[in-house]
Amino acid sequence: MHSKPSPASAIRPAAPLELDLRGDVADLTARLMDIESVSGNEGPLADAIESALRNLPHLVLHRDGDAIVARTMLGHPERVVLAGHLDTVPLPTTPGARGTVPVSWEGETLYGRGATDMKGGVAVQLALAATLENPNRDVTFIFYDHEEVEGSKSGLGRLFRSSPELLAGDFAILLEPTHGTVEGGCNGTSRYKVRTRGVAAHSARAWMGENAIHAAAPILRILADYSPKTVDVDGLAYRESLNAVRISGGIAGNVIPDYCEVEVNYRFAPDKDVAAAEAHVFELFKDFEIIRTDGAPGARPGLQHPAAASFVAAVGREPKPKFGWTDVARFSELGIPAVNFGPGDALLAHSDDEHVTRAAIHECLAALELWLGGKPATGEGS
Amino acid sequence: MHSKPSPASAIRPAAPLELDLRGDVADLTARLMDIESVSGNEGPLADAIESALRNLPHLVLHRDGDAIVARTMLGHPERVVLAGHLDTVPLPTTPGARGTVPVSWEGETLYGRGATDMKGGVAVQLALAATLENPNRDVTFIFYDHEEVEGSKSGLGRLFRSSPELLAGDFAILLEPTHGTVEGGCNGTSRYKVRTRGVAAHSARAWMGENAIHAAAPILRILADYSPKTVDVDGLAYRESLNAVRISGGIAGNVIPDYCEVEVNYRFAPDKDVAAAEAHVFELFKDFEIIRTDGAPGARPGLQHPAAASFVAAVGREPKPKFGWTDVARFSELGIPAVNFGPGDALLAHSDDEHVTRAAIHECLAALELWLGGKPATGEGS
Repeated sequence: MHSKPSPASAIRPAAPLELDLRGDVADLTARLMDIESVSGNEGPLADAIESALRNLPHLVLHRDGDAIVARTMLGHPERVVLAGHLDTVPLPTTPGARGTVPVSWEGETLYGRGATDMKGGVAVQLALAATLENPNRDVTFIFYDHEEVEGSKSGLGRLFRSSPELLAGDFAILLEPTHGTVEGGCNGTSRYKVRTRGVAAHSARAWMGENAIHAAAPILRILADYSPKTVDVDGLAYRESLNAVRISGGIAGNVIPDYCEVEVNYRFAPDKDVAAAEAHVFELFKDFEIIRTDGAPGARPGLQHPAAASFVAAVGREPKPKFGWTDVARFSELGIPAVNFGPGDALLAHSDDEHVTRAAIHECLAALELWLGGKPATGEGS
Repeated sequence: MHSKPSPASAIRPAAPLELDLRGDVADLTARLMDIESVSGNEGPLADAIESALRNLPHLVLHRDGDAIVARTMLGHPERVVLAGHLDTVPLPTTPGARGTVPVSWEGETLYGRGATDMKGGVAVQLALAATLENPNRDVTFIFYDHEEVEGSKSGLGRLFRSSPELLAGDFAILLEPTHGTVEGGCNGTSRYKVRTRGVAAHSARAWMGENAIHAAAPILRILADYSPKTVDVDGLAYRESLNAVRISGGIAGNVIPDYCEVEVNYRFAPDKDVAAAEAHVFELFKDFEIIRTDGAPGARPGLQHPAAASFVAAVGREPKPKFGWTDVARFSELGIPAVNFGPGDALLAHSDDEHVTRAAIHECLAALELWLGGKPATGEGS
């Protein structure tokens, strides 16, 4: 699955792989993609990053499992957190899909798993960590494991529980793909099971039973007729959605089903907490048995914070809302304003067509360098 | 699982179990129930039956797998077939259910797997086979395997293919449970998959996709609103039904589903063949992708046949339609009129509450003895 020359690529090597943090940041992205790091297998990549950062005297390192925290300790009054996850979803299995080759350049576009989500962002973090020896704010770089799986496994969540002092900051940027625009906050998410019950019977004598699947017709009608809202929060428009994501019912081809279950996912704007979201969905399905099975609050954009405002100004583009739930919500829960900002199109994440351009990675790095004062901006001044 | 004293009850014994065909037919039913014969495991019961019938000089025996055919060869101008299956559905697993004890008498009611479907009918066949040495019509007794599983495994189907000459007759009676009433013909059955397709997307950006489960709302509405017909065929009223028996859609809690499938079972009166049934269902769901996955024609009641008419007269009760598909349809396909007639309530078949009364088994035997001239009817005359 790799293009690495090592004949023992499936075995964690004794010596970490070498990373060149001072070369072209897009080439570094490709190098990171070459190190398979599907959730649960972040070890070799974490080792390589730890090894590359350990030689940098301006950073204080901390490792926790396959998560790494690297901090400047310059005594600045303001500290910014730059965070990104090391893991990817599994490699594509569709024969012939471009993404099945972990790495391939087509012209100046890089294809493969992680191109968008989010080896480009991690490469930008690494380039900044290596070159920003004297930033205008203190910087905490966080690289973490297990973002693409259930939240309880999250390396960032683990750090928050075990070492919250390492994560302190005035403002956080997650380098998730946003097409180079600041995306503020995120929608919350919640899941429900809406159930109907009937009476089982042999389908040859259907009138002896009650069909629970037929009884689910109004549930699907409510979902099909629902008009999701768009909610303005702190000046950004959050688009909500309400969807059946699964349906199941019936046990055999000759039995009237006595049970049907519709799993519903409600993505809600950050003006609501999970309880308010639940109340809305319970009201919609008040004629049905319903339970909530999952819930995570969103995050308000927090763009009114001075650090956030200055960052938006440095990027120079109109900020947008983030629709998907991201780890900005974890920072938000701790009172740290957080935004998403990274190279690549989030719509390509997890797809077989995942890709990112060399220019997008360069632009992301340049914006952060400009804001953090590592280099004077060329052309526009600063 | 058995009350048999043998310590090696799970192993097919070298010597067949002994059956007393001339004792009380209800006690014989209990004895048959003690021999576990879930589909695929009919061997020990078939061995016991073969062994018991082999000593009877008035019968010519034929064995095919676990199916047995026993015929009188008296040269009568008319031949009647009495058929029953040896297998049962699996034993109940609900703790404490009465049916979990394969055999238990509560007063004069016999509880356990096979009480209704159809060890009582098989016991009646065996009692007739042993005692009817000089019936007024030639009789063919058929005991067969694999009725409770997919039709392709049916022992009766196998006999029809391999030895159709053994099954010839003017009229057939299946001893399936009918509460002691003649139930004529049977409904046909057909199954369909009605499908919707959408466009997959991450549920955080649901507006990028199209929800296939929501698109199935009208399918469930059509089913919920449908009024099944009752159709008169040869004087019997066949009640139809149209039901979703399974529904499935969705692959993950955060993906807009691009596919949903509803499995529909249409049970149709024997005035229609499978093609006519299909045309009706295709018309109902003409706005949807649909395929037919299964279809078996029903059987007209055939009560106008002289042998059937004389049998109905001997039973002395108003005949009824059979709603469930039974093997009468196999006889019907070969041009042999066939009805269902047996002890016990078909609604209890396959349930944990399966039971039959001693009187019901006795009455079934008496009606057949009367009709076949084995004994003069007591009281009513003949």
